[in-house]
Amino acid sequence: MDRTMSKGSTKAGLPPGTLIHIGEKKTEKTGITVIEYSESEFRERDVSSMDEYVRSGDKSIITWINIDGIQNLEVVEKVGALFLLHPLTLEDIVNTEQFPKIEEYGEYLFIVLKMLSYLEKTDTIAVEQVSLCCGPEFLISFQEGKASSILLPIKERIRNGKGRIRKMGADYLAYSLIDAIVDNYFTILEKLGEKIETLEDAVVDNPEKKVINDLHRLKRQLINVRRSIWPLREVLNIMGRGESSLISESIHLYLRDVYDHTIRIIETIEAYRDILSGILDIYLSNISNRINAVMKVLTIIATIFMPLTFLAGVYGMNFKYMPELEWPLGYPLILFIMTFIGISMVIYFRKKKWL
Amino acid sequence: MDRTMSKGSTKAGLPPGTLIHIGEKKTEKTGITVIEYSESEFRERDVSSMDEYVRSGDKSIITWINIDGIQNLEVVEKVGALFLLHPLTLEDIVNTEQFPKIEEYGEYLFIVLKMLSYLEKTDTIAVEQVSLCCGPEFLISFQEGKASSILLPIKERIRNGKGRIRKMGADYLAYSLIDAIVDNYFTILEKLGEKIETLEDAVVDNPEKKVINDLHRLKRQLINVRRSIWPLREVLNIMGRGESSLISESIHLYLRDVYDHTIRIIETIEAYRDILSGILDIYLSNISNRINAVMKVLTIIATIFMPLTFLAGVYGMNFKYMPELEWPLGYPLILFIMTFIGISMVIYFRKKKWL
Amino acid sequence: MDRTMSKGSTKAGLPPGTLIHIGEKKTEKTGITVIEYSESEFRERDVSSMDEYVRSGDKSIITWINIDGIQNLEVVEKVGALFLLHPLTLEDIVNTEQFPKIEEYGEYLFIVLKMLSYLEKTDTIAVEQVSLCCGPEFLISFQEGKASSILLPIKERIRNGKGRIRKMGADYLAYSLIDAIVDNYFTILEKLGEKIETLEDAVVDNPEKKVINDLHRLKRQLINVRRSIWPLREVLNIMGRGESSLISESIHLYLRDVYDHTIRIIETIEAYRDILSGILDIYLSNISNRINAVMKVLTIIATIFMPLTFLAGVYGMNFKYMPELEWPLGYPLILFIMTFIGISMVIYFRKKKWL
Amino acid sequence: MDRTMSKGSTKAGLPPGTLIHIGEKKTEKTGITVIEYSESEFRERDVSSMDEYVRSGDKSIITWINIDGIQNLEVVEKVGALFLLHPLTLEDIVNTEQFPKIEEYGEYLFIVLKMLSYLEKTDTIAVEQVSLCCGPEFLISFQEGKASSILLPIKERIRNGKGRIRKMGADYLAYSLIDAIVDNYFTILEKLGEKIETLEDAVVDNPEKKVINDLHRLKRQLINVRRSIWPLREVLNIMGRGESSLISESIHLYLRDVYDHTIRIIETIEAYRDILSGILDIYLSNISNRINAVMKVLTIIATIFMPLTFLAGVYGMNFKYMPELEWPLGYPLILFIMTFIGISMVIYFRKKKWL
Amino acid sequence: MDRTMSKGSTKAGLPPGTLIHIGEKKTEKTGITVIEYSESEFRERDVSSMDEYVRSGDKSIITWINIDGIQNLEVVEKVGALFLLHPLTLEDIVNTEQFPKIEEYGEYLFIVLKMLSYLEKTDTIAVEQVSLCCGPEFLISFQEGKASSILLPIKERIRNGKGRIRKMGADYLAYSLIDAIVDNYFTILEKLGEKIETLEDAVVDNPEKKVINDLHRLKRQLINVRRSIWPLREVLNIMGRGESSLISESIHLYLRDVYDHTIRIIETIEAYRDILSGILDIYLSNISNRINAVMKVLTIIATIFMPLTFLAGVYGMNFKYMPELEWPLGYPLILFIMTFIGISMVIYFRKKKWL
Repeated sequence: MDRTMSKGSTKAGLPPGTLIHIGEKKTEKTGITVIEYSESEFRERDVSSMDEYVRSGDKSIITWINIDGIQNLEVVEKVGALFLLHPLTLEDIVNTEQFPKIEEYGEYLFIVLKMLSYLEKTDTIAVEQVSLCCGPEFLISFQEGKASSILLPIKERIRNGKGRIRKMGADYLAYSLIDAIVDNYFTILEKLGEKIETLEDAVVDNPEKKVINDLHRLKRQLINVRRSIWPLREVLNIMGRGESSLISESIHLYLRDVYDHTIRIIETIEAYRDILSGILDIYLSNISNRINAVMKVLTIIATIFMPLTFLAGVYGMNFKYMPELEWPLGYPLILFIMTFIGISMVIYFRKKKWL
Repeated sequence: MDRTMSKGSTKAGLPPGTLIHIGEKKTEKTGITVIEYSESEFRERDVSSMDEYVRSGDKSIITWINIDGIQNLEVVEKVGALFLLHPLTLEDIVNTEQFPKIEEYGEYLFIVLKMLSYLEKTDTIAVEQVSLCCGPEFLISFQEGKASSILLPIKERIRNGKGRIRKMGADYLAYSLIDAIVDNYFTILEKLGEKIETLEDAVVDNPEKKVINDLHRLKRQLINVRRSIWPLREVLNIMGRGESSLISESIHLYLRDVYDHTIRIIETIEAYRDILSGILDIYLSNISNRINAVMKVLTIIATIFMPLTFLAGVYGMNFKYMPELEWPLGYPLILFIMTFIGISMVIYFRKKKWL
Repeated sequence: MDRTMSKGSTKAGLPPGTLIHIGEKKTEKTGITVIEYSESEFRERDVSSMDEYVRSGDKSIITWINIDGIQNLEVVEKVGALFLLHPLTLEDIVNTEQFPKIEEYGEYLFIVLKMLSYLEKTDTIAVEQVSLCCGPEFLISFQEGKASSILLPIKERIRNGKGRIRKMGADYLAYSLIDAIVDNYFTILEKLGEKIETLEDAVVDNPEKKVINDLHRLKRQLINVRRSIWPLREVLNIMGRGESSLISESIHLYLRDVYDHTIRIIETIEAYRDILSGILDIYLSNISNRINAVMKVLTIIATIFMPLTFLAGVYGMNFKYMPELEWPLGYPLILFIMTFIGISMVIYFRKKKWL
Repeated sequence: MDRTMSKGSTKAGLPPGTLIHIGEKKTEKTGITVIEYSESEFRERDVSSMDEYVRSGDKSIITWINIDGIQNLEVVEKVGALFLLHPLTLEDIVNTEQFPKIEEYGEYLFIVLKMLSYLEKTDTIAVEQVSLCCGPEFLISFQEGKASSILLPIKERIRNGKGRIRKMGADYLAYSLIDAIVDNYFTILEKLGEKIETLEDAVVDNPEKKVINDLHRLKRQLINVRRSIWPLREVLNIMGRGESSLISESIHLYLRDVYDHTIRIIETIEAYRDILSGILDIYLSNISNRINAVMKVLTIIATIFMPLTFLAGVYGMNFKYMPELEWPLGYPLILFIMTFIGISMVIYFRKKKWL
Repeated sequence: MDRTMSKGSTKAGLPPGTLIHIGEKKTEKTGITVIEYSESEFRERDVSSMDEYVRSGDKSIITWINIDGIQNLEVVEKVGALFLLHPLTLEDIVNTEQFPKIEEYGEYLFIVLKMLSYLEKTDTIAVEQVSLCCGPEFLISFQEGKASSILLPIKERIRNGKGRIRKMGADYLAYSLIDAIVDNYFTILEKLGEKIETLEDAVVDNPEKKVINDLHRLKRQLINVRRSIWPLREVLNIMGRGESSLISESIHLYLRDVYDHTIRIIETIEAYRDILSGILDIYLSNISNRINAVMKVLTIIATIFMPLTFLAGVYGMNFKYMPELEWPLGYPLILFIMTFIGISMVIYFRKKKWL
């Protein structure tokens, strides 16, 4: 059973807005990285506590605060106090069982995403929640684990001043993060696609019992990926329609582009599911075919030897008066008859295409 | 068959608005609890009859009347008279076969919910109807059974003055009750999730006939949970869109949050159903596989022993002239031939991977 | 095949508006009941022909004309002339293969419903068409058969002046009729629910061939009930939205209530269909399980007796030189060996859990 | 494979608007019938070429030109020139692989329909395309084959001046044609319904291999009927909503009536498909049941005779010292034992309900 | 596994707008064709580099630049610079894993399509991406491979000045290209339709194991075709609704026509999928039927010969006192009895319709 499915219950009964970390602790220490940049400037530092950070009043500076490890509730609360985040926002950040969603809280947009990564060792797909609070000149990103390899290239791009990223606002930065996370879904799908291909070959060549378990496993992984990406589609649709004043119009085109990617991912997942159900059909019909083949062997053997054994039985009877037994050629004759019956049967089965 | 599905018929033919208690009697005595609070005050008392209660005229006081046991029609009627509830509202309160719904009756919102609880003993999910009448400064809640453990923490929160609850209106109280009930669905789903996991392991290891009944049982429980939560989604969507003047704008964010929870619950149920259908596929293919395995054993035995028995039959015939019978080495020779045939067969089956 | 599905063809090619009675003749004589009432007055009489009726000019009097048996086209035409009904209305009234629908014809609303009744004797669900023409101060109802037990209580309520019915208009009367008909669907569902329960028990205990036919029968009945109620949902939605001036606003709440009932009925039907498909799964897997069980018996018998029979065959051979045959203990020895093989096999099958 | 599905390709690469007749040639000679009528007048004549026709300027005269056989491109082009039809209209008229659709081309409405007819001989459903161009005072109808029996009654009605048809405009004439064609779908459905019924009986009584082919055939016919009627629903919905000024308001009610018919047809098709899938379930479970029954016979025979044959084999052994063989009652005793075993087995199988 | 499904991942982590060619290199050399035409003029030339091309300022001249082979990023960038294409447009052009889509970038419409071609040799469907940038007086088309036979006829039409194409704008040219590509889908469907027909015949006559693989293959090809055409439907719907000022109103009718074609293609694909699932049902039931047939042969043989062999075994016993053995007619009698049993069995099986 996939861990993310049903742990929300530990919160049942508590007042809304209570900060409780729900989910696995994925990193020991909470890491805080503060990046401040404008077209001309770039400052990056790791701070050990939010107390070390003072919010700049300069509106031309974009501030990106990235927090790794959300189990440290104190840090989350301090960030919340500093950027005036709504209690429900904070609650959602530390509860890793959110669905992807977008909420507009007056001064900032709150976006929840799921970042997937494929773990080769255990052959599982790890799901990590990323929460973004995107204000006019700040972006705060919360991750469950250590700064992931998916987000690092963006930091690199800001540092190097490559691309448009330094010239644009916090909304573009948010878009860049979402784009990186969504693009990573393709890697996951590629992996799953390879596994489906392997399964497809396996089921045709050599339909073992294992196949059905692999198939079920893949189906569940697809269900999980779908659960992560499906609501994101709506999130991006809302963002791209330009209803929020927090997203400048120049970003809309970019957001519609990511939106198209999510559509493509969802369509691919649907196609994969169709293919998996096709593999199941092959598998089931292969089992039936093999039962059929086994049955045929049995029937052929029985149909050839039962009459022959009967014949041998007849001449094994101990009646006093059985004239054939006395014939000098009785034995060769019966052997000939038996051979004839046997060969006829074989010919008959060949005709019926059973052999 | 689930009891809540089809008992509405006892009412057929009666004039609309007739009060008839439909459903099981879940408590002996109807309990009435009156809680009055404002930011500074808190009064709680249990009354034995609605006659003991006088409606306060003070608009700054929030009144919460909780009624346990709706089979006492007199109490419901008195509450209705006191708070000017519409006849259809009263009719729906005492009919425990409502679907979750929301109706705006001018002066108050009428909300019907289903509260689920998992009964360990009978391994069933009990459904209890909760009806809320939410006016500007009052909330009346009706439950089928005794004050449940799901709603108690909220009473506690009001008494202790913790959280926002004392500072806000009756709409926030209504939201808190709905939130508690919805959060409890996760507990139910967790329970079902565990059972699905157990079933999943069972079907792979040891596919017994019992599995299919468990699977059907779980599927039915999911159908019932879905029937309880599905219409609630629409109820919360309506409430959160802010079309009613009875719900203040500050509550909308909270309601959208619960709405997200219902979406998550529904998605989880859908995922569970997908997984259950996958388990069924495994189960069915396992049966076929086992038929296949049994067939193979039979075929191997028959294919080895039928020709051998035939051979023995041949030399059991009583023909007078059977030269082989006279050979001194005839018997060892035939034994050798039989052994050879037997071993060849075994080798053949090994090659075909049947052994 | 259900009779109501495909008989519309007898009309193909005729000009629209032609009155042709399509459907079974369900009563011998057409009965006409005229009820006139206001809050203070009540008059009821059965007339043998529409000629006996003179339309009252008094707008405060509500007139309800109920016609049983629509095959008498003359009566229908006279009613049409008297109340200025549109030719298409008349055509639809006498064609019993309508779908539930609502049409606004300027002066009146035309509503078509399907009234179901369960016939215990033949174990079928009878469908009867009820057409309502609801004007500002009149309601004309057309039924296929004799005044049914579903509608009688409403007449009774008017006569006794109980409830709101005497104080309200023709629209409330129409609502009351619809409410009674819809509430009756629950009785039908209850009946089907019981039968599904019986089937569910049957399939677990004793999966006979009959089950699949019962299942198919129930599925078809659900399809038919669904076809009757599905369009009604839309009809009530339209009526409850208050777009027609013929329906006063005070009725909207009532109509939304019936609307909720239809939703509940449809959801229940969907749940039943899900359960039926689950029963089919159980049934099919039970057949496979039984094939498996039969196979096992066969394999066990064959695996035990084939080697033994072979052994007996060996010592039935007539070779001259078979030293074992001469041993004094040969026979007990071979019996012992045979017993040993037999017992080993039984132990082996027990280990494999086949016994 | 149904012919109408995939022949559009012969046009690929040609400029749009090119007139190419796609489809079978269904009549040798193109027939042109010109009917001109007003409330008082009626003229009908068959012309051999469009050159013989002069368009009347009198706006009170309705002109209906019916063309049978669209492979004569010259005629279509001339009509197009005379009534100023758009090139795309002409292209669609001669391409018989259109989907039902409606297009408004300024001066006229262009409607494409599919007319079905059941061919008893080949047990197939023939599809014929009917195109209507409906202007303010003219209607041009194009059919693939000879004036069909479906449309003849309408001509008759105009000639006789029966019904409203002579008093109303070209839009009413168009409606009458559509109504006749749609009503004819019921005949087709009735035919299919009968066949489904036959199949349903067949599958219960005597499940032969043929059933599955018949079932597949029926399913395909339903798919084809559905493809013809499905888009028509939308066409009529558009027409009935009254967005086009070419359709007078008095016709809307009539069009909504036909719309209801299409809905009914589609619902019936869906119900038929559900029933067919139920028949498939019965069929498949019947096969499994029969495998089960055959298996039981085999197992019973084997279980009874294998032990007996073994016993006979034992006493057929040639050991020198087999005391039982010498007993005078040995033979009757063993016969008794064999009978006893046989009867026990039969009793055992009766208990297991296999006999 | 279809190549187009999951290669998007190589881009993950790169800044948006980075030009990277994703996909197979389908041609060695990038070919650039420049066609300039107005109603009176026509110029066509192949240029080896975009440097040779100077954009004309004459607004009455329509310029069509067709580029074959998009792996040459330099050419794409130059075109982008010349016609002021958005970076996201360029990125999408060189990424061959786009979904069909339409984007309006102020000055031009960007349209992505999938062009299919059936490769007889490998029995696969090749997918090629075609991107169109349609400005007020220019159209730039990008293809993956060499100028395909699908687009050549349009060039021919412009050259010959046939049809409306020379008189109309760039939007009509874009429409012509889309129309040609969509019409080509019918060829693909025709091919698939033929293969389905072959499969349908094969499965009825001779249900081999190969069938299931062919079926799976066809299903996958349908999934892929569907993925190519499905989003195009929406693209054309958007274009035909006339929301963009870049598409003149005279084109809307044409675009709605192509839209109808895509609908027809999608409906055909759906119908094909339904038919394929029907073929699978036939296939599976045929396997079961054959298992049944094989079982019957086995059972018949066993049921006839097991009792006979037993009888022979009885009279092969060596009891001293077996009176029948001494009867002179014992042997013929037992032969007669055996024959009688055998014939009875055959008659019994004929009665049961097993023979």
